[in-house]
Amino acid sequence: MAANRVEKDSMGPIDVPADKLWGAQTQRSLEHFRISTEKMPAELVYALALTKRAAAKVNNDLGLLPDDRAGAIVKAADEVLADKHHGEFPLAIWQTGSGTQTNMNMNEVLANRASEILGGERGMSRLVHPNDDVNKSQSSNDVFPTAMHVAAVVAVQEHLIPQLKVLQKTLNEKAEAFKDIVKIGRTHLQDATPLTLGQEISGWVAMLSHSLKHVEQSIPHLAELALGGTAVGTGLNTHPEYAVRVAKELAELTRQPFVTAPNKFEALATCDSLVHAHGALKGLAASLMKIANDVRWLSSGPRCGIGELAIPENEPGSSIMPGKVNPTQCEAMTMLCCQVLGNDVALNIGGASGNFELNVYRPMVIHNFLQSVRLLADGMDSFNHHCAIGIEPNRDRISQLLNESLMLVTALNTHIGYDKAAEIAKKAHKEGLTLKGSALKLGYLTEEEFDAWVRPEEMVGSMKV
Amino acid sequence: MAANRVEKDSMGPIDVPADKLWGAQTQRSLEHFRISTEKMPAELVYALALTKRAAAKVNNDLGLLPDDRAGAIVKAADEVLADKHHGEFPLAIWQTGSGTQTNMNMNEVLANRASEILGGERGMSRLVHPNDDVNKSQSSNDVFPTAMHVAAVVAVQEHLIPQLKVLQKTLNEKAEAFKDIVKIGRTHLQDATPLTLGQEISGWVAMLSHSLKHVEQSIPHLAELALGGTAVGTGLNTHPEYAVRVAKELAELTRQPFVTAPNKFEALATCDSLVHAHGALKGLAASLMKIANDVRWLSSGPRCGIGELAIPENEPGSSIMPGKVNPTQCEAMTMLCCQVLGNDVALNIGGASGNFELNVYRPMVIHNFLQSVRLLADGMDSFNHHCAIGIEPNRDRISQLLNESLMLVTALNTHIGYDKAAEIAKKAHKEGLTLKGSALKLGYLTEEEFDAWVRPEEMVGSMKV
Amino acid sequence: MAANRVEKDSMGPIDVPADKLWGAQTQRSLEHFRISTEKMPAELVYALALTKRAAAKVNNDLGLLPDDRAGAIVKAADEVLADKHHGEFPLAIWQTGSGTQTNMNMNEVLANRASEILGGERGMSRLVHPNDDVNKSQSSNDVFPTAMHVAAVVAVQEHLIPQLKVLQKTLNEKAEAFKDIVKIGRTHLQDATPLTLGQEISGWVAMLSHSLKHVEQSIPHLAELALGGTAVGTGLNTHPEYAVRVAKELAELTRQPFVTAPNKFEALATCDSLVHAHGALKGLAASLMKIANDVRWLSSGPRCGIGELAIPENEPGSSIMPGKVNPTQCEAMTMLCCQVLGNDVALNIGGASGNFELNVYRPMVIHNFLQSVRLLADGMDSFNHHCAIGIEPNRDRISQLLNESLMLVTALNTHIGYDKAAEIAKKAHKEGLTLKGSALKLGYLTEEEFDAWVRPEEMVGSMKV
Amino acid sequence: MAANRVEKDSMGPIDVPADKLWGAQTQRSLEHFRISTEKMPAELVYALALTKRAAAKVNNDLGLLPDDRAGAIVKAADEVLADKHHGEFPLAIWQTGSGTQTNMNMNEVLANRASEILGGERGMSRLVHPNDDVNKSQSSNDVFPTAMHVAAVVAVQEHLIPQLKVLQKTLNEKAEAFKDIVKIGRTHLQDATPLTLGQEISGWVAMLSHSLKHVEQSIPHLAELALGGTAVGTGLNTHPEYAVRVAKELAELTRQPFVTAPNKFEALATCDSLVHAHGALKGLAASLMKIANDVRWLSSGPRCGIGELAIPENEPGSSIMPGKVNPTQCEAMTMLCCQVLGNDVALNIGGASGNFELNVYRPMVIHNFLQSVRLLADGMDSFNHHCAIGIEPNRDRISQLLNESLMLVTALNTHIGYDKAAEIAKKAHKEGLTLKGSALKLGYLTEEEFDAWVRPEEMVGSMKV
Repeated sequence: MAANRVEKDSMGPIDVPADKLWGAQTQRSLEHFRISTEKMPAELVYALALTKRAAAKVNNDLGLLPDDRAGAIVKAADEVLADKHHGEFPLAIWQTGSGTQTNMNMNEVLANRASEILGGERGMSRLVHPNDDVNKSQSSNDVFPTAMHVAAVVAVQEHLIPQLKVLQKTLNEKAEAFKDIVKIGRTHLQDATPLTLGQEISGWVAMLSHSLKHVEQSIPHLAELALGGTAVGTGLNTHPEYAVRVAKELAELTRQPFVTAPNKFEALATCDSLVHAHGALKGLAASLMKIANDVRWLSSGPRCGIGELAIPENEPGSSIMPGKVNPTQCEAMTMLCCQVLGNDVALNIGGASGNFELNVYRPMVIHNFLQSVRLLADGMDSFNHHCAIGIEPNRDRISQLLNESLMLVTALNTHIGYDKAAEIAKKAHKEGLTLKGSALKLGYLTEEEFDAWVRPEEMVGSMKV
Repeated sequence: MAANRVEKDSMGPIDVPADKLWGAQTQRSLEHFRISTEKMPAELVYALALTKRAAAKVNNDLGLLPDDRAGAIVKAADEVLADKHHGEFPLAIWQTGSGTQTNMNMNEVLANRASEILGGERGMSRLVHPNDDVNKSQSSNDVFPTAMHVAAVVAVQEHLIPQLKVLQKTLNEKAEAFKDIVKIGRTHLQDATPLTLGQEISGWVAMLSHSLKHVEQSIPHLAELALGGTAVGTGLNTHPEYAVRVAKELAELTRQPFVTAPNKFEALATCDSLVHAHGALKGLAASLMKIANDVRWLSSGPRCGIGELAIPENEPGSSIMPGKVNPTQCEAMTMLCCQVLGNDVALNIGGASGNFELNVYRPMVIHNFLQSVRLLADGMDSFNHHCAIGIEPNRDRISQLLNESLMLVTALNTHIGYDKAAEIAKKAHKEGLTLKGSALKLGYLTEEEFDAWVRPEEMVGSMKV
Repeated sequence: MAANRVEKDSMGPIDVPADKLWGAQTQRSLEHFRISTEKMPAELVYALALTKRAAAKVNNDLGLLPDDRAGAIVKAADEVLADKHHGEFPLAIWQTGSGTQTNMNMNEVLANRASEILGGERGMSRLVHPNDDVNKSQSSNDVFPTAMHVAAVVAVQEHLIPQLKVLQKTLNEKAEAFKDIVKIGRTHLQDATPLTLGQEISGWVAMLSHSLKHVEQSIPHLAELALGGTAVGTGLNTHPEYAVRVAKELAELTRQPFVTAPNKFEALATCDSLVHAHGALKGLAASLMKIANDVRWLSSGPRCGIGELAIPENEPGSSIMPGKVNPTQCEAMTMLCCQVLGNDVALNIGGASGNFELNVYRPMVIHNFLQSVRLLADGMDSFNHHCAIGIEPNRDRISQLLNESLMLVTALNTHIGYDKAAEIAKKAHKEGLTLKGSALKLGYLTEEEFDAWVRPEEMVGSMKV
Repeated sequence: MAANRVEKDSMGPIDVPADKLWGAQTQRSLEHFRISTEKMPAELVYALALTKRAAAKVNNDLGLLPDDRAGAIVKAADEVLADKHHGEFPLAIWQTGSGTQTNMNMNEVLANRASEILGGERGMSRLVHPNDDVNKSQSSNDVFPTAMHVAAVVAVQEHLIPQLKVLQKTLNEKAEAFKDIVKIGRTHLQDATPLTLGQEISGWVAMLSHSLKHVEQSIPHLAELALGGTAVGTGLNTHPEYAVRVAKELAELTRQPFVTAPNKFEALATCDSLVHAHGALKGLAASLMKIANDVRWLSSGPRCGIGELAIPENEPGSSIMPGKVNPTQCEAMTMLCCQVLGNDVALNIGGASGNFELNVYRPMVIHNFLQSVRLLADGMDSFNHHCAIGIEPNRDRISQLLNESLMLVTALNTHIGYDKAAEIAKKAHKEGLTLKGSALKLGYLTEEEFDAWVRPEEMVGSMKV
């Protein structure tokens, strides 16, 4: 029994592992592109199988593909969608820039598997043809961008947005729970006037709300599908109803708002929708980096930092020092935000570098896009469960810092005038006194007056959380 | 008569040029931040004057500022808005990260000028106080973000979007005018199936249409104003109606959809709206880079390139070589697109780096944002007038390349079968023949048949321009 | 038989798969950081094992670790180095920013395996302790940066530089082989004065030579090792000779020029050496992108592009169009160059974001650095073997374009004067004539004179290849 | 008297302001490139004048340019170098990508001025020709890259490196001065083992030392000059000795190590040396961002932050709160570092985007490079004078935090064993006690023992500053 079988393409015969469904072109790509470890992402493979399934169905409906072959392709695609052919999509991101080799990988796997489903063999005597049947009415140039958009929309809608909402909800609950805890504000890293912890956290919630809107606004452009444009966007060799029908089929399969792209030339020649949508992702990354940094600074210490917040202790910080809780979830988050900001640049350059009828930076673009979605979605999930939900205020510390602050002197202006208030603050700073101590020492007011006038809780305004 | 006068602030006295309206804090900043040549942009200075004008008006309406001083501040602001005090805003971008020094620059200029308007002097005996009057109900921490948003929205709406629409219109007219010119398509830089020149250009139009939508979607977040949040977002020291009123006033002054930010903590602590909006700008830059590259490659030559398009000759290309038209407008465009992609990174890092109640990367962020708007708007204007409107097809060259192409052989598949068609193409390629020459030499069809069957104009589909 | 065993750390007990060597802290990290698919790179794991091996040896030499345990740790490390424990290092990049969890992963695996080597068990009754023995004289804070530098230097020296030299050699041979082929030059994408193909390619060789020097210059800083700095750089709890000895041991093990970092505070608190070294990598990426673009444009066509070069046909371009060779190796190269430029940004932000005694963006930084090395090294290897070595000139096409060019008219200036030369060029351009045709039609010189005077091969100068 | 005069070029006549020395091509560029506000930087104009001066001298030496015209050009160039023609170089960065228009701007200004020096007029009857005389033996394609390199090397050597050394010296003095101040270390923003303030600052010094080396290593490639390559690198129309001589002349004029580029094709077709050199600049930016952040965090407070350092108070922080010193120099520094990181991306994309014989992103590349040098050099100067030299320790605060820290318990391990030490630390943390208080309460040691054993100054190692 041979470990290999022979597959052929227009370049001639080539040995392929007998236990693999892929064919000649996949094998050639494997051999010609031994570059690093990044493989075509699972989300893209899944979206490509969905696209093939939809195309087979519509080709059949339009009388272009007979029932048996169409049915077998659909079944084979369903197997891929059920992850039964894991290991059959081994190609690198670093291949042809149109994704042709991955399109052929899918065509070959589905053709061989469909042939087996029909009772035939895999290999050159197969009953289903990778190009003529599986790729019917398609070109890599429209099918790969379509799979990119399907993968992107599904990932954003089913993975990113739900996690974003969960984190937003958690933080909103914190904002509500801590709405009465008055604390010192900080601007320029310097002590400023007070606000409540709830107000501070409400800013994080608002950041996420805005990001959510920005991400959602990027969906309509992403939902435009290139399929039906074939080689250069003219739709050469496709049925007049094909493009609209196949977009509808994909919309139904995914329950996402896919439509056929009104202009197929833009859809093939650019990755503009992904460049723009990643703009929303980089915005989210910037927001999350700020939030994670705030959390770790506010929980810095335990003795020599700010220490206003306590965060969950998930792993040993140090075997010797109880209370040392390294903000590891914050660190994972800020690292992945850096990555998203870097991915943005890679993707921008590729997106800007198309020529004429085709952008050939596609595998790199979708690799970065999907990685960013995964990083942000998983990162928010992890940060939420292992950090955000466990955030608690260190009330004593918050109170101590608030009361030590010199900034509360602002409240005295209207009672004793700016000059005396400033004198109190200056003396306190110089001699290391509390405000009250300084005030009493100077004799400008009584202890009762001080306690009545200097009330931080009245300095936090009515800005609702 | 002294060339200097003495101004004072809480640090003490300092000499200021007598002919300048600015005061002590501006002077200190000038001396402490001698860094490079980038000054606070005119758009920001203008927006800041508008903000001061609106605040004075609302403070007066709310009974917080008497008529005379409010009126004088409004008049002084109007002078700044009429560009009568050019030269009074000399501060560098590279100053305090909150923009405080530029806020004080404006406060000082308006206070001194308002004092003169009221018949008083400039300097320490002025009748209007920079902080108590001009900056009333404000803090740098809310006023500077407000001015950033005002400047950004005005620049995008009044400068960027109109130029984007003009270029889109020009290209749309070209797409329409050239809709019947059939030309070779190119994918992977390799000859592909034909399309019309109008279709190719329609892709550019679609790119700009999408960009327009993306830019417009970024306005609502940008239109949220921080004013009323004062030092940390709580609105300490402001009248309950102040925030809403002042946003309304700014909306009326600019006829832009400004509203008071629902969450002032987000508005002070982040530059998220600008980070996101610049995501739309970087998308536009990616699109424009592709368009400009297509234009210069399609007009490359005159003899040894593609040469399908002629572009206007605006300046001597070479004193010796007629027909050498350097695509200088394309070069300016692609250079400025690089800059926008770089600005995006600078702005992202600053946007991600806020801490607690304040982001202190503001002057850098708005510098990059407004520069990008200027580059893209002016760049599109220049590209439109000096290149796009003059694009003309070289019909002979387009026709020649189309007819020389081997890709048209696709049309023969349905008449003589794939194998013979491929044989014709192979022979033509190997022997340097035309397709027709090869076909006739092989005797697979007659000249009449060739002419009847190989009709590129029927290969371009019905995809409307 | 239980599928799990219980491991413990200071947080308490935790179930670990019985067939795995890792312990409690690895298990916790697995559960707390389920973020995306990027795992700690193999090169880093290898370098970490080397570091542990060296530390065990030096600890033993200094009398700090008994022979049996030291020997067992060395053996266990050798097994890891021989890739016998693949699958034991499952942690994500997105973990604690110090890499502590991966350090503990290695400590736990080596401790359990060393215990087995000594005849003991894995698990809590093991004979070798992860912290006290394997991690002796170490802290994650110095051991992880050390492993990063070891991995980086080895990858650059053993992988990147050799591939760079091979590609440089290939191109140098092409430059030599084609040194007499005169072709048209192109500036601004417009026809310019001639040069030889060898000269053109010599520019690519020079680019790689410079990049080689730049990469080599980055080694000395990378070769400084943090080991011996322990927690904050002071070297607390280490033997005075430890740091120097362990660097020497690592230098011997790898035959690379490692030395102990003269300043351990810089070594722990920054990733500066990697930020700088990646600057050389991004420079190489910029060079390779230019080279790959030149190759694909020069081989564009076959009929409607430039077509001066032929590149190897590695896979089917199109089943219908012979001669359509998609420049897929160029596409893979330009895509991966985009990635390197994006990685640079991610790494820069992380590198710039350290605080106080430790930079906590380390796993992200080394992930990007090693990915860039892999991409560039593998990419050059692939490009070299599947493209560069097969580059051949299309001599007829080169000759045809050269002769059609109008730029050769420059050669007539000295014979018939600028004005008549320009008239010839203008007429040729306007009427679509050859230069010679135009010249003869105008009667300004004879055919013999034209042939004698217009000699492109005399216009290419003596600039050696 | 007319306000305009007529200048001509091959496109025909054009009006030029009579009081300006520039000619037709400058005027056309002004009208065709009204894009944003960024003008050709002064450093580049200066370097271009130097280049013209050197070329005139060498052309004269080689007998290619008569004494009178050469002398007049040299004198005119000297006037430009003495900044006597400020206002004559008005062109935008966003022009032709080769910088041709700025080269012509210089040619026109020098020709008209040289004519006047010779007693002739400016304008079309001038005695010196912009192309034939001033631009003799040159092409924009070699002269502009030459000017870029001259400007870059001079800026780096005369501006950046000196400021870098000054800051390094200041910090080194601080490291020395504070070498005995023991303070708490911080990793992960969490309290860690102690080090001295001098050690901490020594890390900053080491960062700058490495950056200095990196920057210096970038000089040799930058010092290679394209001049002599003319249009495409072949040196067409130049004297065999010209290239070497003119590089030597420029080396003498600037006292910088300029040499003629060994490969002119690389020198024209790429900006690789600038892309690489900017890699060193971005590394410096990453270092400075870390240093500036450390300074502002260590001086955060005055009451609610870390507060270990005092920095100079340069301007009013707040009118009400004495002791509030906003770290404005740190903010300017971190903002400009963001800009340098963004500039890096812009410059990388341009550098990677050359085609064939010429890179046409030159004005953008040099704009970003020189801006980065200016930002970093001026930024270090400002930070040094207005912040670094004034850094002082708050010894009480440092001491207080050190003594409150629980991390010192590590010192007890060898005396009372790990378990009791941990118990002390845990109790202290839980009950908010000092370590000593906890230890005494538990009765594990006497006060004398505690004071003898817990000596932070013995935990800081011998790592020299």
